[in-house]
Amino acid sequence: MTDSHQVFEIADFPLDSGDTLAPARLAYQTYGTLNAAKSNAIVYPTAFADQHPDNEWLIGQGRALDPDRYFIIVPNLFGNGLSSSPSNTPAPHDRARFPRVSFADNVRAQHRLVTEHFGIERLCLVTGWSMAASQTYQWAISYPDMVERALPFCGAPRVSQHAFLFFEGVKAALTADAAWRGGDYDTPPETGLRAFGRGYAAWGFSQAFYWQERYRDLGFDSLGEFLTGFWEQNFLGRDANDLIAMLSTGQHSDPAATPAFGGDLTRALGAIRARLISMPAEKDLYFPPEDEQWAATHIRGAEVRVIPGIWGHLAGRGINPADVAVIDDTLRELLATPVD
Amino acid sequence: MTDSHQVFEIADFPLDSGDTLAPARLAYQTYGTLNAAKSNAIVYPTAFADQHPDNEWLIGQGRALDPDRYFIIVPNLFGNGLSSSPSNTPAPHDRARFPRVSFADNVRAQHRLVTEHFGIERLCLVTGWSMAASQTYQWAISYPDMVERALPFCGAPRVSQHAFLFFEGVKAALTADAAWRGGDYDTPPETGLRAFGRGYAAWGFSQAFYWQERYRDLGFDSLGEFLTGFWEQNFLGRDANDLIAMLSTGQHSDPAATPAFGGDLTRALGAIRARLISMPAEKDLYFPPEDEQWAATHIRGAEVRVIPGIWGHLAGRGINPADVAVIDDTLRELLATPVD
Repeated sequence: MTDSHQVFEIADFPLDSGDTLAPARLAYQTYGTLNAAKSNAIVYPTAFADQHPDNEWLIGQGRALDPDRYFIIVPNLFGNGLSSSPSNTPAPHDRARFPRVSFADNVRAQHRLVTEHFGIERLCLVTGWSMAASQTYQWAISYPDMVERALPFCGAPRVSQHAFLFFEGVKAALTADAAWRGGDYDTPPETGLRAFGRGYAAWGFSQAFYWQERYRDLGFDSLGEFLTGFWEQNFLGRDANDLIAMLSTGQHSDPAATPAFGGDLTRALGAIRARLISMPAEKDLYFPPEDEQWAATHIRGAEVRVIPGIWGHLAGRGINPADVAVIDDTLRELLATPVD
Repeated sequence: MTDSHQVFEIADFPLDSGDTLAPARLAYQTYGTLNAAKSNAIVYPTAFADQHPDNEWLIGQGRALDPDRYFIIVPNLFGNGLSSSPSNTPAPHDRARFPRVSFADNVRAQHRLVTEHFGIERLCLVTGWSMAASQTYQWAISYPDMVERALPFCGAPRVSQHAFLFFEGVKAALTADAAWRGGDYDTPPETGLRAFGRGYAAWGFSQAFYWQERYRDLGFDSLGEFLTGFWEQNFLGRDANDLIAMLSTGQHSDPAATPAFGGDLTRALGAIRARLISMPAEKDLYFPPEDEQWAATHIRGAEVRVIPGIWGHLAGRGINPADVAVIDDTLRELLATPVD
C-alpha cells in the first residue's frame, strides 16, 4: 500500500462546461507492469471522496486484479484533492470557482493518459465502484473499440433523479453551515462536514445492516460511536469544496449529452461493445438493482449480477469480506471470458 | 374540512423523562357523533409535522372512517404546534427547553382525553400513519383491553436504528444553520429549514417514484420545482424547535421501556390483544415491510398487508388515490371483523 502517485499534466484541457483547466492535472497510481504487447492494461478509477489508496483492497497477488499479471492504472477523480480540485487549483479556478467537470471530461483525460503517455490501445477491463461505475460506463460508451470488458459495481451510467436528491440533501446539510461562506472559508466548516456525514449514514448501508447492528463487524460498539467515529470522521478531513465539486460531477453528468446520442441514454448504452457485467448491491438505497436491470436491457450481451446481502452501497467499498469475494470472483470470470 | 379544534388540558402531566408539563395541552378535533352506548369511537393520531387537518383525507361519508357511523377523535402529537410544543409553551419549557415527550406520554394523555373527558371505555379502532402508527402500537400495548382493532400504516412499534439515522441526518442539516442558535432563534433558520426539506426529499418517496417522475401527478413540472415547491415549502412554515421535538419523540420512544417488558420489544408486542393489521408501503425507505413482518410474528393473529406501489413512505399521506383506496378498503374490512 502506498499513497505516492504520479501526475499526468494536460496543458489546456477544455471541459464539457465550456471552461478550460490550464493545466489539468490527473493524478494516478499504477500497479504491476505493462507487458511488451501492451495487452494487459486495466483502468480502475476512484469513486466519490476516494483516492487511489482506497481502491487497493481489490488489487493484489492471487486476486482477479493481480499486479503480477495485469497493469492496473488507478486515475483519481477530478475534485478528489489529488487530481485537479477546488482545493489545489490556483485562481481563477480555486475553491467554489472550480469549473464543473463531467464524467466524460474525467474519462477523456484518462484516455489521454492511457494512450498518449502509456501508448495503450486496448484495455482488458475497466471497472469501478459508485461514481467510478459511472466512469466505467462512460469509458465503454466513449471508446467502444478500446474497452474489451467492463464491470461497473454499485453505480449507474447516469445518476438517477433519486440519487441526485440524496446528493442534494447532503450538499444542503454541508452548506447550511454559515462557516461554509459560499466556499470561501479559511477554517473548514466543521459543523457542516459533520452534518454531511450524519446525513450520509442512513444511505450508505441498508436498513437491515443497521437492524442487525453490523457496524459491530467494523469495530464500533454502538450506533452513536459509528455515527461519529465512522461517518463524521470520514468527511471531517475532506475539503468541503472538493466534496461539492465531486457531487456536482455526479449530479450533472450525462453520457448521452452529445450530438450523437441527443440525450437518449438508451442510444448511448447501445454504443457499448464491451462484454459488460453490472454488479448492483441487493439493498443499495441509491443505486438500486432495478435501475441496472433497465440499463442492461439496452446493452448487447450485458448481464446483471446482484451482490447479495445487506451491506447496501458500501458492499462495493471493500469492507465486508463476503462482498469482496463475490466482486473478485466475478472479475476473475469476466477477465477469463474471451472477447473478439 | 376545518382547522378549528378543542383542547384537553391536564394540569400536571408527568412525563417518562421525569419532567412535568404543567399544564399539558392536548389539542384535538372530532368527527361524527359519539353514540349513546359510547361504542363507536376511533382514535386516529397525527404524524410527524402534521396537524389534524392533515388526517382528514381518510375521513368522510362513504369512507371506512365515516363520521355518519363513527366518532373519530384526532389528537395532535405533542410538539406539532397545536398540542403543547416548544413553540407554544412558556418558560421554563419553551423552545429547546421543551422536555422530551415519548409516544407513551402522548398515548397516556390521549387515554385521559378518551376516558375522562368522553367517558369511552372501548375503542373500535386505533389507526395512524408513520409516527401515528407508533402511537397506534403504543395504544394497543398500553391498553390491550380497550383497543379492539389496530391498523398502523407506514410505521413501526419502535423507530429502527436506520430510521433513527435518517431523522438524525435531517436534524443535523437543520441545526447546521447558525441561525438555529441552539433553538433560541428570533428569526427562523430558513437555510436550515430548506436543508431539512432537501434532505427529506429522497426519503419520502421511492427510487421508482422519481425514476417515473411521478411528482408530475402532484402538479410539478420538474424535479427542481418539486424540491422547492413541495419539499422546502413543506417545512419552511414549521417551527424548527417543534420539528426537532417531534423527531426526538420518534427517536427515543420505546414501548418496551417499562419494568413489565424490561426493554424486550417482543414482550411488549406480545401484550397486544387487538386484532391488528399492519400496512407498510412496499417501497418505504425508512419503515420497510420486512420490519413489520418481524413485528407481526410477535403479535397474536396479526397480519401484514403491504401497500403495493412506488409512493414509498408517502403512500400513507393521502396524496395518491390508489394508496388511499387500499388503506380505506383494509380499514373497512378490519372494522367489519367481529372481535371478542
